[in-house]
Amino acid sequence: MVRLGPLAAARRLLPAGPAGGWRSLSRSWPLRPPGPVGDRGLLSRQARAAAGSAGGGRAPPLKTPKGTRDHPPAHVALRDRLLAAVVACFKRHGAAAIDTPVLELQVPFARYLAMNKITNMKRYHVAKVYRRDNPATTRGRYREFYQCDFDIAGQFDPMIPDAECLKIVHEILSDLQLGDFLIKVNDRRILNGVFAVCGIPESKFITTCSTVDKLDKMPWEDVKSEMVGEKGLSPEAADRIGEYVQLHGGLDLIERLLQDAKLSQNKLAKEGLGDMKLLFEYLTLFGIAGEISFDLSLARGLDYYTGVIFEAVLLQQENEHVEEPVSVGSVAGGGRYDGLVGMFDPKGRKVPCVGVSIGIERIFSILEQRVEASGEKVRTTETQVLVATPQKHLLAARLKLISELWGAGIKAEMLYKKDPKLLKQLQYCEDTGIPLAAIVGEQELTDGVVKLRDVATREEVDIPREKLIDEIRRRLEP
Amino acid sequence: MVRLGPLAAARRLLPAGPAGGWRSLSRSWPLRPPGPVGDRGLLSRQARAAAGSAGGGRAPPLKTPKGTRDHPPAHVALRDRLLAAVVACFKRHGAAAIDTPVLELQVPFARYLAMNKITNMKRYHVAKVYRRDNPATTRGRYREFYQCDFDIAGQFDPMIPDAECLKIVHEILSDLQLGDFLIKVNDRRILNGVFAVCGIPESKFITTCSTVDKLDKMPWEDVKSEMVGEKGLSPEAADRIGEYVQLHGGLDLIERLLQDAKLSQNKLAKEGLGDMKLLFEYLTLFGIAGEISFDLSLARGLDYYTGVIFEAVLLQQENEHVEEPVSVGSVAGGGRYDGLVGMFDPKGRKVPCVGVSIGIERIFSILEQRVEASGEKVRTTETQVLVATPQKHLLAARLKLISELWGAGIKAEMLYKKDPKLLKQLQYCEDTGIPLAAIVGEQELTDGVVKLRDVATREEVDIPREKLIDEIRRRLEP
Repeated sequence: MVRLGPLAAARRLLPAGPAGGWRSLSRSWPLRPPGPVGDRGLLSRQARAAAGSAGGGRAPPLKTPKGTRDHPPAHVALRDRLLAAVVACFKRHGAAAIDTPVLELQVPFARYLAMNKITNMKRYHVAKVYRRDNPATTRGRYREFYQCDFDIAGQFDPMIPDAECLKIVHEILSDLQLGDFLIKVNDRRILNGVFAVCGIPESKFITTCSTVDKLDKMPWEDVKSEMVGEKGLSPEAADRIGEYVQLHGGLDLIERLLQDAKLSQNKLAKEGLGDMKLLFEYLTLFGIAGEISFDLSLARGLDYYTGVIFEAVLLQQENEHVEEPVSVGSVAGGGRYDGLVGMFDPKGRKVPCVGVSIGIERIFSILEQRVEASGEKVRTTETQVLVATPQKHLLAARLKLISELWGAGIKAEMLYKKDPKLLKQLQYCEDTGIPLAAIVGEQELTDGVVKLRDVATREEVDIPREKLIDEIRRRLEP
Repeated sequence: MVRLGPLAAARRLLPAGPAGGWRSLSRSWPLRPPGPVGDRGLLSRQARAAAGSAGGGRAPPLKTPKGTRDHPPAHVALRDRLLAAVVACFKRHGAAAIDTPVLELQVPFARYLAMNKITNMKRYHVAKVYRRDNPATTRGRYREFYQCDFDIAGQFDPMIPDAECLKIVHEILSDLQLGDFLIKVNDRRILNGVFAVCGIPESKFITTCSTVDKLDKMPWEDVKSEMVGEKGLSPEAADRIGEYVQLHGGLDLIERLLQDAKLSQNKLAKEGLGDMKLLFEYLTLFGIAGEISFDLSLARGLDYYTGVIFEAVLLQQENEHVEEPVSVGSVAGGGRYDGLVGMFDPKGRKVPCVGVSIGIERIFSILEQRVEASGEKVRTTETQVLVATPQKHLLAARLKLISELWGAGIKAEMLYKKDPKLLKQLQYCEDTGIPLAAIVGEQELTDGVVKLRDVATREEVDIPREKLIDEIRRRLEP
């Protein structure tokens, strides 16, 4: 039912601002209003303001807040299918679900682990999150969107949880049949090692990372000139970096770098390469190494990453004559962050973590475009049977029958008319994709049967009333 | 993975306040950070503040914002079961799902209908909502909570959608096996008629409503003195109201009031009573009239209700010697609001609506207490098989086998240790409720079998590798 907008409630919870109020309760909790100065008072003001406009005053702004949008039934139906596939994968891997307040004082998962002194947890979290952003809503970027996170926290043997995170990305992207994809992997320790052996001072590691990260969108020459011009690296140092970060491959590349005269002398890089080798062994056992690329240009800017980092990109489908597949956008990413929980723990106790976020909104955009292009009609309801009558004065018969269907767990609808025309009822089935119509007319009532109609074939069969439920279930079997 | 708290993002979307920032993205969207002044910059500040505390500085506040809480896996597992039952019922009745922004400029559903010029829709909406409230968190009241709404919008024949809303409440409360319940029904037009024939001026209808609404918690004498003392009604008028609002019953009471000398002269009351009669006829056809009480004390304060109003209460279970069952709390409520959408439509076009909210949080509290009292352990994961090894150096065998199980859609876990002890692995099954262990040792690898162990009975059988999936599926059949 009605969710009130700008409740005083919300304004206290969060100070009022230009973006307006918050969706909140009305008839729900408290089911009875708190009194004359409670919700009701506020609704009245709201309603009066709106009512005033209907009478010729200022119209209330009929829009959603900047950077947000409504999700009509076709959206939600598709999104729910997507979320269900993602959650099914997380559950298949034994994750438990947690939920933390949308409004946070701290970094949620790190805060959650530190506050509850949890040192060991495999969990997922699917929820709406918020960001500032000058919303480029045309490109599918909104201020309110879903985030799907999976994380493994705990002290374990190297690269086993990390490999599982990559397996999860692989499973989800395969399940969703999004087409070819590539998962790029790198390690913060390898990147730092590369920067160190190229003579970059440690203070410039992070900023150099963010420039390296642009190599998938810019040619090396542009990246180099940003390094030299904006970041203050020497051209020689930039060239030395360039020799490494343009490399990508698999186990062979890892082996080569382990033999690299300079890198093999760097402790961090050696550690990182050793673990990368282990990771590829595990990915091979999982049968997914073919879709994974060890890519030294992958940097991912967030500076809390401490080990493996990864990102999944969809590959261009249409033009098959390109030499190398072109990325059409990241759809998942993550990495290892062993230091973050310790930063939030009062005693600095560390909890190593590795995790992944699935870019559900971008995947949604892709699937939505595909559905639109195909002209396929997404059903927004799951109704299986319409209960219909061919004559007047049969509302009672419809109410009785539909009640029996609901009682048997069958998804059923009827038109909210006392005496609807049969044609209208059948049209409703076609419009909304209801596969069966259960028709009770005077003759059927006399005969103790129900006419079951297959909406697609228009075939009708009389079914004895007591066998109707079984027959409907039989017809609905996949 | 990590959700950042006080992002600049959130602070722009909503002005910063004492409650802090917003959970938001980190590794997700943009999967690459927007640059050195983006998320990363903010994280660094956050991380530095926290890291400082670990080094002896001020500790970051390890708590959730006032009136909110974390939901650990046992909570979420129970809540998801509840929400699934509610959503299943909404879908069974043919509703489509919509989603509107949490942050709203207007009353969401009315705004949604008016903005999209929708005159006809059956929809549900399950989402988190927010309220101000001096949080009495001990009584299960929080500022962040779930709301489950079902509404039917459109111009239809009288009381058919209204009856379906009551049927939905009945189905949900029955499905959840919460014990005995009662659904109270009244109609705003009847209440207004009562007030009118008792000589109350129209300006006092709303405030009188809110006093009448207290009759379920206060004796009539106290309600009367509030009417007279605080609301300024004459004692005689209050007494006249008292004669009506203490009545409750079924069709018989409706018939009696239709014959009432005063009420039958009031146009609104007559309309309301006529529709109430129709409603009870439909409820009888649905087979649920026994749990519905026409109760003239039910008022529900929100002043946008225009017709039928209702509220479901759970009845006390323990003490069966009480003469009349005592309510232990409202768990659902709603009603008809035919004027609200028109108030938000620039041209004042009306869309009649009736809807219901399920009080999922109160139901959750009740079920949670029941689970706690029973000592029943709620499983927080759905893992079906633990892949285990009895000897060292068999990590590769586990990785290969678990990958096969995941590929077949089986929910499987393994410990993230290279060489875990078998006892530890079996203990993990018992601790987390995993029913099966698939054990591969050296002998099993040689023989091409897997030892399948029933964790409860400790029975073990060697299964040929190629028959393992089928055997696991067979064992997991309900």
